[in-house]
Amino acid sequence: MSIAEAGEFGLIGRIVSRLGAGSATLLGPGDDAAVIRAADSRVVASTDVLVEGRHFRRDWCGPADVGHRAAAANLADIAAMGARPTALLVALCAPAGLEIAWAEGLADGLSAEAALVGAGVVGGDTSSSPTLTIAVTALGDLEGRDPVRRDGARPGDLLALSGRIGYGAAGYTVLSRGFRTPKVLVDAYRRPEVPYASGPIAAGLGATSMIDISDGLIQDLGHVAAASVVGIDIEREAFEVPGQMRDAAKALGVDPYQWILAGGDDHPLAATFPAGTELPAGWRVIGRVVDGSGVTVDGKPWTGGTGWDHFR
Amino acid sequence: MSIAEAGEFGLIGRIVSRLGAGSATLLGPGDDAAVIRAADSRVVASTDVLVEGRHFRRDWCGPADVGHRAAAANLADIAAMGARPTALLVALCAPAGLEIAWAEGLADGLSAEAALVGAGVVGGDTSSSPTLTIAVTALGDLEGRDPVRRDGARPGDLLALSGRIGYGAAGYTVLSRGFRTPKVLVDAYRRPEVPYASGPIAAGLGATSMIDISDGLIQDLGHVAAASVVGIDIEREAFEVPGQMRDAAKALGVDPYQWILAGGDDHPLAATFPAGTELPAGWRVIGRVVDGSGVTVDGKPWTGGTGWDHFR
Repeated sequence: MSIAEAGEFGLIGRIVSRLGAGSATLLGPGDDAAVIRAADSRVVASTDVLVEGRHFRRDWCGPADVGHRAAAANLADIAAMGARPTALLVALCAPAGLEIAWAEGLADGLSAEAALVGAGVVGGDTSSSPTLTIAVTALGDLEGRDPVRRDGARPGDLLALSGRIGYGAAGYTVLSRGFRTPKVLVDAYRRPEVPYASGPIAAGLGATSMIDISDGLIQDLGHVAAASVVGIDIEREAFEVPGQMRDAAKALGVDPYQWILAGGDDHPLAATFPAGTELPAGWRVIGRVVDGSGVTVDGKPWTGGTGWDHFR
Repeated sequence: MSIAEAGEFGLIGRIVSRLGAGSATLLGPGDDAAVIRAADSRVVASTDVLVEGRHFRRDWCGPADVGHRAAAANLADIAAMGARPTALLVALCAPAGLEIAWAEGLADGLSAEAALVGAGVVGGDTSSSPTLTIAVTALGDLEGRDPVRRDGARPGDLLALSGRIGYGAAGYTVLSRGFRTPKVLVDAYRRPEVPYASGPIAAGLGATSMIDISDGLIQDLGHVAAASVVGIDIEREAFEVPGQMRDAAKALGVDPYQWILAGGDDHPLAATFPAGTELPAGWRVIGRVVDGSGVTVDGKPWTGGTGWDHFR
């Protein structure tokens, strides 16, 4: 059955019936607006949009995959402030002929990813559109911590990373060349594994800056360098290229460091910490903050591509 | 200059430079997420999406008009819970060839409408898309009040309305027939005048239910009737058809009550109050809550169209 046949309210009813409630949800879907607990009298909020053909392809990702990816991209932004995600709101624009099962699968993926952090899908909107588009807003709770911004890195700080990197970009290249394996890379593209808990942990440890790596490590760290008025040097040796990634890179004729340093889609968190900070499990040092400006790799400018511009 | 020429970050920079800060904004655009004050430890949140060709046409509305409309649709949902809006987040999906001046005008309209209630545009996202799409999320503060839901109407309650109704739908009909006047109707379609303050006032007065009328009075009150398990009877005589609307209706061969009872685009607030409540300025009685189910007009089913289904 298409969503046109179900009608707007049929579609909404089917989606809502698949959503679990988050622990912070005071009033969920079904009214003009949702009400979410904001225990420390502040709320963290971020929006990300996924457009078919630009951020996902239906022949590469199932609907639940797209739901996981849309939720992860937003929840990662909340974690990157040092906050715990509490809620998602979702606007779905879809062709009237879309199968309702696809929308249901999307709702399942969104709800399952949100449930990983105890968040609920609390509201949304639907519209017909020629272009399948999913706009997600995530909310979060700082639990009394200060938000960790992009502008606090200081020369001498450690640069550290939490979460996988390069996997999603490698999976994207594999799929774009028409392959379906290695599975670990393709699955990483389809469903990012975001280290949500690492954000609040880093904030608690006194991280001086933090960012979600969504467009590429060098490009996104460039935002930190610019906001903090510092340079950031990445140590290439800090990244061991996993065997399956190395093999895939060789087979596809790609430099795997291009995936690691300039690829998106994994949503690891990068943060800076005062020198001497003992990093907990999940965080590893990948460089340092220096005097100067911009991002270098082993002290030199990176000559590969640096990341993604959504209009170019 | 097109937004492709400006680039993603050029576009974002130009938009952000045009946004005013809201009084509840603790951290505005430029980081992974925004931080907004949620003084009473809860936050109200709602999302609405506008799709070109479905919710607006660029030859009917300037970019600032579209910004006002997108913001108003969302801010009205917050007011309809009895809350004061505090912040907007905006995802803009646009063809790469869109003039950057259009995006700037949109930002101006969003920011100006938000400023009417002291709210700021605190964050967002941009992407290229073949379909111009604007997804807005609004947040709000209940200021200690209980949220006014759709499910609290009781038989015997007064049904009251705050704000203009029928104007936006009349303006839509005027534009769709190729006319540009009467100006009052066309302007109402382009920039709704939402009675934002009436929402918190109704909540403070003990409204038993409240809803933003966005898809048509009969259809939207149908949601209240269903959620509250009551009937709602609208008194047709409560609506005086303004002169210019009557004249336009006559010229266009339309029943003006179709605009009033089944048209969208104005975003008035409808609420139910215990019988005997003295309504303040801005609220007027338009019917009552009865035993039964569904929505009637003067005790009878309405035989015209009832409202809008976004997929039909």
